[in-house]
Amino acid sequence: MQMGMIGLGRMGGNMVKRLREGGHEIVGFDMNPESGRDVDSLEALVASLAAPRIVWVMVPAGAATDSTVNQLGELLEAGDIVVDGGNSKYTDDRIHAAALADKGIGFLDCGVSGGVWGAERGYALMIGGEDATYETVKPIFETLKPEGEYGLVHAGPVGGGHFAKMVHNGIEYGMMQAFGEGFATMMRSEYVTNPAQTMDSWRSGSVVASWLLDLFENATADDPELKDVPAVANESGEARWMVEAALELGVPTPATAAALWQRQTSRGGADDILRTVTALRAQFGGHVTKVDEIATH
Amino acid sequence: MQMGMIGLGRMGGNMVKRLREGGHEIVGFDMNPESGRDVDSLEALVASLAAPRIVWVMVPAGAATDSTVNQLGELLEAGDIVVDGGNSKYTDDRIHAAALADKGIGFLDCGVSGGVWGAERGYALMIGGEDATYETVKPIFETLKPEGEYGLVHAGPVGGGHFAKMVHNGIEYGMMQAFGEGFATMMRSEYVTNPAQTMDSWRSGSVVASWLLDLFENATADDPELKDVPAVANESGEARWMVEAALELGVPTPATAAALWQRQTSRGGADDILRTVTALRAQFGGHVTKVDEIATH
Amino acid sequence: MQMGMIGLGRMGGNMVKRLREGGHEIVGFDMNPESGRDVDSLEALVASLAAPRIVWVMVPAGAATDSTVNQLGELLEAGDIVVDGGNSKYTDDRIHAAALADKGIGFLDCGVSGGVWGAERGYALMIGGEDATYETVKPIFETLKPEGEYGLVHAGPVGGGHFAKMVHNGIEYGMMQAFGEGFATMMRSEYVTNPAQTMDSWRSGSVVASWLLDLFENATADDPELKDVPAVANESGEARWMVEAALELGVPTPATAAALWQRQTSRGGADDILRTVTALRAQFGGHVTKVDEIATH
Amino acid sequence: MQMGMIGLGRMGGNMVKRLREGGHEIVGFDMNPESGRDVDSLEALVASLAAPRIVWVMVPAGAATDSTVNQLGELLEAGDIVVDGGNSKYTDDRIHAAALADKGIGFLDCGVSGGVWGAERGYALMIGGEDATYETVKPIFETLKPEGEYGLVHAGPVGGGHFAKMVHNGIEYGMMQAFGEGFATMMRSEYVTNPAQTMDSWRSGSVVASWLLDLFENATADDPELKDVPAVANESGEARWMVEAALELGVPTPATAAALWQRQTSRGGADDILRTVTALRAQFGGHVTKVDEIATH
Repeated sequence: MQMGMIGLGRMGGNMVKRLREGGHEIVGFDMNPESGRDVDSLEALVASLAAPRIVWVMVPAGAATDSTVNQLGELLEAGDIVVDGGNSKYTDDRIHAAALADKGIGFLDCGVSGGVWGAERGYALMIGGEDATYETVKPIFETLKPEGEYGLVHAGPVGGGHFAKMVHNGIEYGMMQAFGEGFATMMRSEYVTNPAQTMDSWRSGSVVASWLLDLFENATADDPELKDVPAVANESGEARWMVEAALELGVPTPATAAALWQRQTSRGGADDILRTVTALRAQFGGHVTKVDEIATH
Repeated sequence: MQMGMIGLGRMGGNMVKRLREGGHEIVGFDMNPESGRDVDSLEALVASLAAPRIVWVMVPAGAATDSTVNQLGELLEAGDIVVDGGNSKYTDDRIHAAALADKGIGFLDCGVSGGVWGAERGYALMIGGEDATYETVKPIFETLKPEGEYGLVHAGPVGGGHFAKMVHNGIEYGMMQAFGEGFATMMRSEYVTNPAQTMDSWRSGSVVASWLLDLFENATADDPELKDVPAVANESGEARWMVEAALELGVPTPATAAALWQRQTSRGGADDILRTVTALRAQFGGHVTKVDEIATH
Repeated sequence: MQMGMIGLGRMGGNMVKRLREGGHEIVGFDMNPESGRDVDSLEALVASLAAPRIVWVMVPAGAATDSTVNQLGELLEAGDIVVDGGNSKYTDDRIHAAALADKGIGFLDCGVSGGVWGAERGYALMIGGEDATYETVKPIFETLKPEGEYGLVHAGPVGGGHFAKMVHNGIEYGMMQAFGEGFATMMRSEYVTNPAQTMDSWRSGSVVASWLLDLFENATADDPELKDVPAVANESGEARWMVEAALELGVPTPATAAALWQRQTSRGGADDILRTVTALRAQFGGHVTKVDEIATH
Repeated sequence: MQMGMIGLGRMGGNMVKRLREGGHEIVGFDMNPESGRDVDSLEALVASLAAPRIVWVMVPAGAATDSTVNQLGELLEAGDIVVDGGNSKYTDDRIHAAALADKGIGFLDCGVSGGVWGAERGYALMIGGEDATYETVKPIFETLKPEGEYGLVHAGPVGGGHFAKMVHNGIEYGMMQAFGEGFATMMRSEYVTNPAQTMDSWRSGSVVASWLLDLFENATADDPELKDVPAVANESGEARWMVEAALELGVPTPATAAALWQRQTSRGGADDILRTVTALRAQFGGHVTKVDEIATH
């Protein structure tokens, strides 16, 4: 079927390729003239599609998505559908859907997992929105998803797709943290000679066999002790939002949060806590507080 | 090759079956006369094997393993080999190995993952011990492991097999906790209509695809909200040992520990903490402390 | 000086008493006719005060405070001042202040600590708002605070008082959790004969000497093992808000969150996590999942 | 009464001073000739005391204490008493007590809190051992403790004093972490102008009033943002031992452990976890992994 794609970066570009290979007619637009876009403006994109139109937004969450959805609200007509495939916060979806609904434009939010591997392996998709809207866009989803019975779910009403993706990413944080804790423990122990090789061996037959473990073998193939990887990690929002959502729902998420905090700590987030602790220790115990002395105590 | 197996329970019994199907000659012994054992005493087991003998111990960790290894130290001869395939603590392995070494008996510790699925899927094996000893028993390991290049590792010196298995189980705790946190968050939210179906969809294409997620689909097939499963969980030692080992190595393991503590809490471990909190709140705030009042505040 | 007090419950009522003893003229109003109120409506309250008026709002945070502040916005005049002494979220303060500022009415947010002991011991006060407004109300604050140099701070601009109080309460959660963890550990150990007596002994000379420890002695005086206190605790919002605020600021707060989660867990918040863990264990390990069996494993 | 003191460092030296001011006759020994010692060998110390002797050991826990206790076992006679006032692990106490008991020598373990302030403020003491032995040494304890009814407890049998001190220090870790989390959250927020001043204000009237908060004012007097204090902290064992003891007792201690892990992380303990996370993110998402790029994402 025909669809417009806004945003032709790493994710959007790969998705267009997979969709075209699946027989869909995709008109692509991106702000960047070097992106290989088919049209050079949102107006031209909308004009090039036959009504009722489907437009997929694949731009950074927040201001860029807000702005794009607002412009589409001006340009599209009743009966058209906007799909937000970015990493928007689930609470934004209701705002976007309501604004578009005022003009009779449908809305779906779509969480997309799979990263750079999705082009080949297929993307895991989680959709939020009304049944009829979902059914209209389903042929697109069917092409993007992996082969087989998994990889696509109509998770719930508007917001449900991004809520599910948020939870998915929170789980991902927790799993990576768990693997990291295990690897780090083996790295410091005299009992395990080659921690990376040991982790690789778990890819078959073990309870922890997983795609992340498959990737771990790739990651350590040339650098089994990860010596060239910095001991610092960023966070991109989803785990934070999940912990916050769970806090409000009364659900404890200590493993997810531990993973998030480890990353925030690596960026200096705990520095003032440590300063407090060290300053207090110096007060009551006469403990050393200079860095070079600490290094030897 | 020929081997004696001590302990014919769920794990040992299935392993014997897989080994026999792989062409090995296994003599089985178990304390329980109903176990389908081939011989009715340790003495008879040893007598039925040709030197140099290999004896695999697959009994509960702790006293049962200690006692079995000690008896084997009396019955076996120099050149024989004992393999401890149970869930022994890695620190016990060095004690067992040293005692056996005094008599010239070799020792390997073998962590085994795969649970009840191992009989069919193969067992992930992690071995600790000397190279020569490992090479001698390797044909047995090759039969027990899954097909393909993964599932078997010579992890390190004596203790390394159980250390690796301990870490493996700690990771398993963290992963299950991560999935649980995600499922629980979706269960309480109005955004996701069917949390179990959403989790199932991640089995292909997503970053969290894993064998545990495959099992989750089985677990929720007839009970998608897990209403028939008690909200209480046991712990079996490995994660606890891992957290302790990591503490001594200076490695933080907050996700692993979170998983462990959740289980300890479900068994009442935090009750006195909560009593302290509620008693203090009543002191400074005049907060209610009776259970029925708490239920409505 | 003259001031109106709205809300004559446990906190408001005690504060009125302390203010009158300090020589202030307080006009009290409460929705409840049995409250000992001086006037029977907000209109009457406002009418009974000479301009420029100061009105202290001491009602539950959320809808009740919103409604009261809105009504005061209608009834008061330019130059009057509203003080919100409840447990409002700091983000609400900016909304309230802006709405009142449109009419020339000043606003201060005031976090109040001290609980039922404040009447006698004095209240610790944290104020947010503009300097001139703060200076106007300062005589009231000076009477409410404890004697001596501590107990009153102009923490920052509007919202700063409740932000500081939120952080204060988060710290309080962490401290109570710390005491609880220590008490619970001693309760299960054979090494300490009388944990409550041991905790009491720390009231002098030790690093952990604190008002909470003083209260602990009261709490355990007649029930040294806290056997009559339920192992369940509520949470009232501030620690949750603090963890959320810190997450957005990139500051890890694991101790504060641990305290909060323990309480949420005691109310069933982790039940679906535990169900997931136990269901998965049953899948891969054939572990028991019935409650009565768990109880003996 | 008469007593020998072994170890005249910061703690031991101050204690001798306080004991002498209290009228006791103390003979001091230290390995260091510059320590102001009264005798120059353990033999001379023992010879200078009238039987039945009391000897207080105030040297570093571990090898130094083991060695000193062993030597005293050789030099002392039945009826003498050894007090270990260092930070020994509670499990060592039973070993020391048993070895001394073989020769009829009594043993008490004594946890000491109060740091450099103890000389003036008095030391909080927690004692483990038999009743009769405790009663014999009690006049010493009464002089060391603060004035008033608190500061001294006979916590339990041998090991109980150090177990109680270990728990005390674990609580101390949790409290400092709680204060640190609050301070750090305020430091990053625009709502609180002067976090240190706000914390100081809580010294009276608030729920978190405590000796640590008193010390915090000292610590921030000349450096309110703690800019001269390194963001790194050491750990000295007790909190680690407490978390381990609690793990074995089935008691979760997330706040205590959070404090400990923060310190271990500041010393690089989580580096391999972060490397794992960042390496995996690079695999599935094409995320940047170079430090300078991370700094701007």
